[in-house]
Amino acid sequence: MIRVLVWCENKQNKTDADVIRVYPNGMHNAIADFLNKDPEIEAKTATLDDPECGLTDDVLENTDVLIWWGHIAHHEVPDEIAKKVQNRVLNGMGLIPLHSAHFSKPFKLLMGTTCDLSVPGHFKENLWCTLPGHPIAKGIPNPVELEVEEGYNEYFDIPQPDELVFIGAFEGCRLFRAGCAYHRGRGKVFYFQPGHETYPIYHTPFIQKIITNAVKWASNK
Amino acid sequence: MIRVLVWCENKQNKTDADVIRVYPNGMHNAIADFLNKDPEIEAKTATLDDPECGLTDDVLENTDVLIWWGHIAHHEVPDEIAKKVQNRVLNGMGLIPLHSAHFSKPFKLLMGTTCDLSVPGHFKENLWCTLPGHPIAKGIPNPVELEVEEGYNEYFDIPQPDELVFIGAFEGCRLFRAGCAYHRGRGKVFYFQPGHETYPIYHTPFIQKIITNAVKWASNK
Amino acid sequence: MIRVLVWCENKQNKTDADVIRVYPNGMHNAIADFLNKDPEIEAKTATLDDPECGLTDDVLENTDVLIWWGHIAHHEVPDEIAKKVQNRVLNGMGLIPLHSAHFSKPFKLLMGTTCDLSVPGHFKENLWCTLPGHPIAKGIPNPVELEVEEGYNEYFDIPQPDELVFIGAFEGCRLFRAGCAYHRGRGKVFYFQPGHETYPIYHTPFIQKIITNAVKWASNK
Amino acid sequence: MIRVLVWCENKQNKTDADVIRVYPNGMHNAIADFLNKDPEIEAKTATLDDPECGLTDDVLENTDVLIWWGHIAHHEVPDEIAKKVQNRVLNGMGLIPLHSAHFSKPFKLLMGTTCDLSVPGHFKENLWCTLPGHPIAKGIPNPVELEVEEGYNEYFDIPQPDELVFIGAFEGCRLFRAGCAYHRGRGKVFYFQPGHETYPIYHTPFIQKIITNAVKWASNK
Repeated sequence: MIRVLVWCENKQNKTDADVIRVYPNGMHNAIADFLNKDPEIEAKTATLDDPECGLTDDVLENTDVLIWWGHIAHHEVPDEIAKKVQNRVLNGMGLIPLHSAHFSKPFKLLMGTTCDLSVPGHFKENLWCTLPGHPIAKGIPNPVELEVEEGYNEYFDIPQPDELVFIGAFEGCRLFRAGCAYHRGRGKVFYFQPGHETYPIYHTPFIQKIITNAVKWASNK
Repeated sequence: MIRVLVWCENKQNKTDADVIRVYPNGMHNAIADFLNKDPEIEAKTATLDDPECGLTDDVLENTDVLIWWGHIAHHEVPDEIAKKVQNRVLNGMGLIPLHSAHFSKPFKLLMGTTCDLSVPGHFKENLWCTLPGHPIAKGIPNPVELEVEEGYNEYFDIPQPDELVFIGAFEGCRLFRAGCAYHRGRGKVFYFQPGHETYPIYHTPFIQKIITNAVKWASNK
Repeated sequence: MIRVLVWCENKQNKTDADVIRVYPNGMHNAIADFLNKDPEIEAKTATLDDPECGLTDDVLENTDVLIWWGHIAHHEVPDEIAKKVQNRVLNGMGLIPLHSAHFSKPFKLLMGTTCDLSVPGHFKENLWCTLPGHPIAKGIPNPVELEVEEGYNEYFDIPQPDELVFIGAFEGCRLFRAGCAYHRGRGKVFYFQPGHETYPIYHTPFIQKIITNAVKWASNK
Repeated sequence: MIRVLVWCENKQNKTDADVIRVYPNGMHNAIADFLNKDPEIEAKTATLDDPECGLTDDVLENTDVLIWWGHIAHHEVPDEIAKKVQNRVLNGMGLIPLHSAHFSKPFKLLMGTTCDLSVPGHFKENLWCTLPGHPIAKGIPNPVELEVEEGYNEYFDIPQPDELVFIGAFEGCRLFRAGCAYHRGRGKVFYFQPGHETYPIYHTPFIQKIITNAVKWASNK
């Protein structure tokens, strides 16, 4: 059984009507719910509201893959907790930062770069696979079409991925390295761009499939 | 002095009015001409019309970087000449296949894959740099905008580049790994997508600058 | 069930007393035997003695992972069969060339380089893992110690691996990239150096474990 | 002119007779001296003894490549200075951490990993080149033989290098990824293992040549 923890800052989930309409139980629960349909996965959740962000030593030690969604409250995660997450990844835990978690502290610590990007607007996105034999791409059509998503655009200041699995193409001749796989220490990291909070991205079957694949790839089980 | 040989199949250059209008002296001469403006470069040309394709042992031995443009006559290059080019690259020569030379025999031999892609039409292209510290990207704006170019689209069946320097975004949510750098043996390879024969791509200053940079990078001098 | 085909040229297996002593039923059967102990794997064998080398279209189409051991008879494999293997890898089959199969035709075609190396003698080898979170390294001590093995030495003329999982250190300050993982098309390739024919390398539990791990990694199942 | 700053913690240089015997003017001056023989390079030095470690904003802004040697006083470099160095690299400065600078703060920040390794003793080392067409390897024999050096051993906890240029083989079947090239942001990083303080490694012509090559590669000039 792969033990997944879906972490969410859980801010806009509580205050933004557009987010609540799409994710009435919060994004983290939406993600945990589809993961829990897989018989190999047991997903729980934690948020910034929990003591120690819900990321105690004991919780981290018993997590195989940590999924991270944050956006407006990255700075509220204490540095020492971000470092604990970094160290746990180096010791073998998988980490899957989603969307605006490109700016989350653990991801930035693990990349060593600014992880900056530009946000030109909201557009149709085609998610193209550039590594079709990769386990994260298994069973996924090429491209995956997203009717509307927040556009992220290069230059994305990350190290070259060990495996660049997806690149997103947005209307207006824009693009973004959208699925980036890394080995870091004994752990693995998969950054995945789709998932703006006001669109039903995590309700989309192929996006769910990609995240489920990524959990299995990132797990050392 | 970097000794460059610009090789061209030189077919459409002679028969296609749309090509002749853009490149009245042939694409190979247009490319050699702008390269020869650089004081560190001495560029010559060769074509399929020359004996042994202009790629004798002596010529190859005295070439530091070979630029290759081919489209409709890849099959007319004898296998043994393609293998000689491959071996010369492994022994230190640089190779820069341009545009439809993704299907040239030497590139396919060096990649070991089909190098297949799809061609969905003709569109505006933005060429985004994903590795801004790379010498091939030096002095190049991000993006380079091309008003119209033949669109190439993923999946592009190549090995993961050692250095993915550019990705092209085309209208209609399409994209293509457009600037792909490889080490192969003692030599280097840089595949570069722009350069459809009926558009003045090689007259564009930033494209000229990228190719000039690539020559210097690919040279072992 | 992962369908593995263990291919062997089967020459020294029949004529060389030192090989027969170590592998009385042939190396291919020794490898298939330990793989078949894994409940997820079903391994068969084929050799150069079989019609079409035992690599008919039908066999290849029904093979998930092909293991290849060859040494003195690479040239007896017809070019068209080597190309069929290459194409089948690009369409999703895994390929695991072992030891002297660095010079096998399918591996050379997929790499695009000479795959040359030097052979300085026979020595103790320590196999060091440089990517401990990789699935092929799972459950493997660091280093794996081999009392004596044929030493392979750099420069090994291969493309940079996508994932360099093991490097072998030999007595006398020698070393060799020993476990090299590649994505090629929709398939995967894992070159693995240990396995000289007169030493009981494939009877060694940790080597068996690495090859078993590699089969699971290379399979698209 | 490439503006190099050779930074040294300058501790053992002042107190350890074995170091003083080998580097009577300090290691940093020994390194700057051989670099200054190259007409394209202008090398200065800075140490922990200087105000702000000699790494003021103005100094960093006017440095193209920073060479870093530290060993016993990594913790004396303030975190904010380490972060300034990191940011300057992301903005285009080259960084060349030498030997025990694998544990320097700027390198660790840029890698995102522990950069830990093991130190099994002192041995003969052969430095093998695995990427002979790389500009850092230009003019270097394969291997470079070092009569005695402090042995570093895998597992070295670093991200996979973008370009693995050298691997060191030590007596006793030990090895270490010794020359590791990275792109980070707009800058480049080259970690290079040789250089224990009590051996005349930086007086060795081929080591000087490698470091000089690395300076030119890491510079954006």
